[in-house]
Amino acid sequence: MGHDAKKVSVLGLGAMGAAIARSWLASGYEVTVWNRTVGRAEALVGEGAVVAGAVAEAVAASGLVVVCLLDDASVGEVLADVDLTGKDLVNVTTSTPGQARERAEWAGARGARYLGGGIMAVPPMIGVPDSGAYVFYSGSPELFAAHREALAVPAGARYVGEDAGLAALHDVALLSGMTGMFAGVSHAFALMRGTEVAPKEFAGLLVGWLTAMAPYAYGVAAQLESGDYALGVTSNLAMMVEGNGTLLRTAEEQGVSAELLSPLMALMERRLAAGHGEEGTAGVIDLLSR
Amino acid sequence: MGHDAKKVSVLGLGAMGAAIARSWLASGYEVTVWNRTVGRAEALVGEGAVVAGAVAEAVAASGLVVVCLLDDASVGEVLADVDLTGKDLVNVTTSTPGQARERAEWAGARGARYLGGGIMAVPPMIGVPDSGAYVFYSGSPELFAAHREALAVPAGARYVGEDAGLAALHDVALLSGMTGMFAGVSHAFALMRGTEVAPKEFAGLLVGWLTAMAPYAYGVAAQLESGDYALGVTSNLAMMVEGNGTLLRTAEEQGVSAELLSPLMALMERRLAAGHGEEGTAGVIDLLSR
Repeated sequence: MGHDAKKVSVLGLGAMGAAIARSWLASGYEVTVWNRTVGRAEALVGEGAVVAGAVAEAVAASGLVVVCLLDDASVGEVLADVDLTGKDLVNVTTSTPGQARERAEWAGARGARYLGGGIMAVPPMIGVPDSGAYVFYSGSPELFAAHREALAVPAGARYVGEDAGLAALHDVALLSGMTGMFAGVSHAFALMRGTEVAPKEFAGLLVGWLTAMAPYAYGVAAQLESGDYALGVTSNLAMMVEGNGTLLRTAEEQGVSAELLSPLMALMERRLAAGHGEEGTAGVIDLLSR
Repeated sequence: MGHDAKKVSVLGLGAMGAAIARSWLASGYEVTVWNRTVGRAEALVGEGAVVAGAVAEAVAASGLVVVCLLDDASVGEVLADVDLTGKDLVNVTTSTPGQARERAEWAGARGARYLGGGIMAVPPMIGVPDSGAYVFYSGSPELFAAHREALAVPAGARYVGEDAGLAALHDVALLSGMTGMFAGVSHAFALMRGTEVAPKEFAGLLVGWLTAMAPYAYGVAAQLESGDYALGVTSNLAMMVEGNGTLLRTAEEQGVSAELLSPLMALMERRLAAGHGEEGTAGVIDLLSR
C-alpha cells in the first residue's frame, strides 16, 4: 500500500464521527476532518487533525472518505455538489437498507466506490482494543480489500456482502433483537418491584439467564434452514403457551401490564390454534412476514 | 443427618417429575414415586423406585415429599385427604407467586413445613452435572437447611427468601425476560428473510450481540436502586427513540410487522414526551407498574 493508505477524511463529527476520527489520529493516520459547525472540528486539531473549511476540500484531501452524518438526507445534501470521482466512500451514517442501496447507486453514478457501514458500538467503545465493538460493512469488495487495515482501526470490521444494504440490515436486525430483550428486561424488573430483592441482585440472575438462553437462536436458525420447525424442540409451543398463562397471571398479581409480552404470546397462540403445538417458536417468524 | 436424609417421595411423574426422581435414584436415594396413572411410575421400577399405590402411602414413606404436578389445583386435589403432619413439602409445580403463598399457608395449617420451587431448566438438563440447571426455592429456611444436600441433586438449589411466593416470582420474571428476548429474536430473523445470509450464520452474530448486551440489565438495576434514571447512560432515550425510527422503517422496507417491538417503542416515546430524554429506559418500568 502506498502512502495514501494512511490518509483518511472524516465528514461529520458528532460523538461517533469524532470518536472514529480520534481512533485514526491515535494510530498515526493523517486525518482531515469536516463538520457543519467548525467548533467540533477545531477540538480535534490538538490531536493532529487537519480541519477542512469546506466539504469539497475534505473529500479532495484523501482517497478514503468516511461519512458519519445525522441521517441519509444529510449525506445527500452535504455531498450534493462535491466531485466524488475516484473516491472510496464509506458511509457509516445510520440508514435503512433501502437508503444504503440507493446511496450506493448514487455514489456509483458519481464515480465513487461505495461501502455502507453499520456500527455495533457506542462512541466510548471506538478505538478501544478488545471493547468488542465492530462495524458491519457491505458494498464494494474491492474498496473493503483496499482499506481493510484502515477500517479495522476504529473497531472490528466485518464484511457481510456486496449488497450495500446488508450492513444496515444486519445492524438493524441486531438492534431489533436487543430491543426485544430490553422489553423483556423491563417487564422482569417491573415484576420484581415491591419485593425485598435488590435490583442488582436480580440483575445478576437475569443476565445469567438471558446469556444462557440466547443460544436458543441457533435452534431457531436450524429450524428455519431445515424447514422443520419441530427440530430439536424440548419445550414445544403447546407447553410454552401453557406457561404463558402463568406469566400473565403473575403479571396481573403483581400489578404489571403485560403489554410488552402479549404480542408474542398472541402469535404463539395463533400458531398453536393452527395445529403447530409440537413445534418451537420459529413459526412466529412466518406470521411476522407480510 | 440420619438415614431418612437419603429418602424422598416424588408425586407426579410428568417429564419433569420423572427426571427429578431419576436424578435421586442415580444418586443412591431411596425414592418412592406416585403418579395418577400408574404406568409412568412403573417405568421407574427398573431404576430402583418404589411405587406407591396411593398418594397417602407415598407421603408416609419419606419425610421429604416433592410435588411436581400439572398445576396448583392438582396439588390441592391430590393431597386433599392426606395427612401432612410433620412432613417437609417441596412443591415445584408451576405456580404463580400468589398460588405458592396460599399453598404455603395451606401446608402450614396441615402441620407441614413448606418450600416453593421454580425450576429453571427443561427435563433433559435435570441431574446432569454442569448443565447450568437450577431451582429457585423459597419458604421455610429450616426445611431448606435440612434438605440442602438432597435438593442439590436434581439441579443447583438457590434459596431466595422466606416468602413462599418468591421462588415462583423469580422463575416467572426470568421467563418473562426470556420471552421478550425471543420476541426480539423472532423479529430479527424475520428481517433477514429473503437475503442470502444463512440463518445459522446470522444466529452466531445475534447470540454474540445479545450476550454482549445482556449486562445492560446491570445498568437498569443501578438506575432503579439510585432513583437516577440517567445514571451511566451512554445512549439516552432521545437517541434510542431516534434509532427506533430506523428500526421501524427497515421493518416496513423488509415487509415485517413491527408488532413485537412497537409496544416498548411506544412507552419509550411516552417517557421522552414527558421530558425524560436524557434518561435510559428504566422509566419504562414505572409505566408498566399499575
